[in-house]
Amino acid sequence: MFNKILIANRGEIAVRIARACRNMGIRSVAVYSKEDEKSLHLQIADQRVCIGEGPSRESYLNMDRIIMAAKNVGADAVHPGFGFLSENSEFVRRCQENGLTFIGPSPEVIDKMGNKSQARITMMEAGVPVVPGTKEPVYQAERGKELAEEIGYPVMIKASSGGGGKGMRVAESEDEFEFQFNMAQRESANAFGDDTMYIERFIQNPRHVEIQIMADTHGTVAALGERDCSVQRNHQKLIEESPSPAVSLETRKEMERYAVMAAKAVGYTNAGTIEYIVDRQGRFYFMEMNTRIQVEHGVTEMVTGVDLIMEQIRVAMGEPLSFSPEEVQIRGHAIECRINAEIPEKNFMPSPGLVEKIHLPAGCGVRVDTALYGGYRIPSEYDSMIAKVMVHAPSRQEALMKMRAALDEMVILGVETNLDFQYQLIKHPTFAEGEADTGFIEALMGGKSQAGRMEDPGVDRR
Amino acid sequence: MFNKILIANRGEIAVRIARACRNMGIRSVAVYSKEDEKSLHLQIADQRVCIGEGPSRESYLNMDRIIMAAKNVGADAVHPGFGFLSENSEFVRRCQENGLTFIGPSPEVIDKMGNKSQARITMMEAGVPVVPGTKEPVYQAERGKELAEEIGYPVMIKASSGGGGKGMRVAESEDEFEFQFNMAQRESANAFGDDTMYIERFIQNPRHVEIQIMADTHGTVAALGERDCSVQRNHQKLIEESPSPAVSLETRKEMERYAVMAAKAVGYTNAGTIEYIVDRQGRFYFMEMNTRIQVEHGVTEMVTGVDLIMEQIRVAMGEPLSFSPEEVQIRGHAIECRINAEIPEKNFMPSPGLVEKIHLPAGCGVRVDTALYGGYRIPSEYDSMIAKVMVHAPSRQEALMKMRAALDEMVILGVETNLDFQYQLIKHPTFAEGEADTGFIEALMGGKSQAGRMEDPGVDRR
Repeated sequence: MFNKILIANRGEIAVRIARACRNMGIRSVAVYSKEDEKSLHLQIADQRVCIGEGPSRESYLNMDRIIMAAKNVGADAVHPGFGFLSENSEFVRRCQENGLTFIGPSPEVIDKMGNKSQARITMMEAGVPVVPGTKEPVYQAERGKELAEEIGYPVMIKASSGGGGKGMRVAESEDEFEFQFNMAQRESANAFGDDTMYIERFIQNPRHVEIQIMADTHGTVAALGERDCSVQRNHQKLIEESPSPAVSLETRKEMERYAVMAAKAVGYTNAGTIEYIVDRQGRFYFMEMNTRIQVEHGVTEMVTGVDLIMEQIRVAMGEPLSFSPEEVQIRGHAIECRINAEIPEKNFMPSPGLVEKIHLPAGCGVRVDTALYGGYRIPSEYDSMIAKVMVHAPSRQEALMKMRAALDEMVILGVETNLDFQYQLIKHPTFAEGEADTGFIEALMGGKSQAGRMEDPGVDRR
Repeated sequence: MFNKILIANRGEIAVRIARACRNMGIRSVAVYSKEDEKSLHLQIADQRVCIGEGPSRESYLNMDRIIMAAKNVGADAVHPGFGFLSENSEFVRRCQENGLTFIGPSPEVIDKMGNKSQARITMMEAGVPVVPGTKEPVYQAERGKELAEEIGYPVMIKASSGGGGKGMRVAESEDEFEFQFNMAQRESANAFGDDTMYIERFIQNPRHVEIQIMADTHGTVAALGERDCSVQRNHQKLIEESPSPAVSLETRKEMERYAVMAAKAVGYTNAGTIEYIVDRQGRFYFMEMNTRIQVEHGVTEMVTGVDLIMEQIRVAMGEPLSFSPEEVQIRGHAIECRINAEIPEKNFMPSPGLVEKIHLPAGCGVRVDTALYGGYRIPSEYDSMIAKVMVHAPSRQEALMKMRAALDEMVILGVETNLDFQYQLIKHPTFAEGEADTGFIEALMGGKSQAGRMEDPGVDRR
């Protein structure tokens, strides 16, 4: 049993973890940078330690100071939250060397899954589907065409040394393969001085669907349903929901089966997420694993009734899972909108500053995780995400209505936010019909095909 | 489909109803007294109408003004909330005469269940268990003893004209029956000039357990589990929870079966509650029916996932229930603490005034229904209940921990509240073990047997 947990994070996730500690009767210690001395997480935790200046490397990324703080206050364990040091295996090792339990998986597992190409190979070996592609280097269009045939069209021809979109070409069919291959290879040779190519199946604007897993140290691995996180801008998730409107019950079961298989293959413990991409035909492929709690864990909590942070702490104490994997039941539908202090009209430029007034929605099936309060000054040093609005209702349709009402009710004065933008997304027919894929926002902003043009985001939200 | 609903109430329940309207895309109209012009419900509703001065008879109880307001704004329906006009059949008739749908049962049903002795007879005829007792007047100890034998000891001997505890005596056994009967009868004759007596089974400090029902206008009646509301002070509920720790699954099913039977017997529609008292042996008896939504409906929402206010509105629009009665599933455990602006140390004297600062708990499984905000002045004209803190967790033990943490986190500055008192109740071994009955608070305050002495309510809550 832990007596004291140090929370190596800030903002709403630090508040979230401190609350979980309170629920379990465990004392919590907040660390903070000087810029965060008015932060809410210091109020919710039982104890506080200043660990440095605003830049993260001087504070929230500074392993020495965090470990020293943990030892000074007599903490038994460290919860890393997400971001910062949460996927840093060196930090985990340093914790262990100092007699601190890291609330997360082992450093070996983090290393194994942290390297994306290594993870891809590990997953292939474990029998988990990955995007089909060549394993051998390709130099000739003719050989390429044979391999492309096996992979199936459309294919993406990629430069092995590539990056930034250079040396990348899509071939829709066999007819155009040779032309596109030669174009890509020439680009690659010109740009990188290397004509080594490889070929993968091309999946345009897939859905992003992930499985939450929780594994104890006794060999039990549970899958807790999926989250659809397709609504993204520059790979930053904006809206998440569970269940996914794009995934059938059978597909979910398959995704869960592979996720559990993947976790078992690497000896995974604690909370983790297997991210898949899903194509238009509903086929899914392993993309990567996140070896930590995720921002969007709350939607899973709503539909499963499992408190994932408390479960993380229990697992780290060596307890078995508090539920059996077969018991997990998905009830209703949950959606989360991330509220950022940013200006959508100015290319989502961050907008830190003083929160003059705030009113949060609440009530039946509404949850807001935030560290904001009236009079709080959002610092410019950190991520612009300031709140997560979550709703839970019996059906997706009702959850959408609840989210509209919640966003409509929410008031933040003093700083600009993406509240109106999120309101427009929720109302957008493409999203409302469950059709938004990872290309949705791009199409929306550029007026491209999938989404059509966005309504004026400045209009009254009701 | 309603276009506009007038909310004939104030405070947190008016906010709750306005939010439900928003969820359904229905416009809402708040009415308010002059004293309530800064009330939150005016902000959440789409429209507002002032209906008079602070005293309720001049505003929230004034049928003429409320109906005129509803007609002036073009409302289709009126939601009465609880208290005020919610169980007034004349108001329902007046609404109907004016073409307004009353969101609740018919006036005939309200009349039938509103008269407690009439309701008792109706329920007996429907086969619902009521506290066993005599149906004939009793004048002689000898005849009384025969009847007491049938009823079963202990019995309560009561003066038919009685009141205020006079002419009431408990007989624990046959041996003392004659003595107690004669004492009670003499008291009655002296106090009321009437020696007519009746005899009921005596149930000391029962549990108060109620069944939530929801009935549509198509003949479907659903039971949504029970709420244990045993923790009361002067018949005012303080803590409610679902499921009840005193009721077995079989007993719940029986209670639900009778509740549905009762509702069907009177042609009940919309939300209602059948209140039972439960004795130490787990036998239960109909006490009364509340023909409206209850303060504590939120705990049922948490364990069933059904939004009861939205369901009330749907039913009033003539829709069938949005779920089938067989589908209702109780998930986990929910607890509610009512937070009142009152001073427990001064005999729970109300303490209205300015809320200087407020911080509400939130997060996984936590819900606070309130109309408070920082800077709000709680008026002295109305009920002292200012917030309902609700928690939901997989088990009762975890829900208790979550409630402790939530109350501990909650801050209200400027007015005195019963927050500390509630914290002590939640922590009290009798409540924690699920043993609190309707005598719990009295015993606690008087240092009597069941509860033992209360800890100093002034100590630090953590």
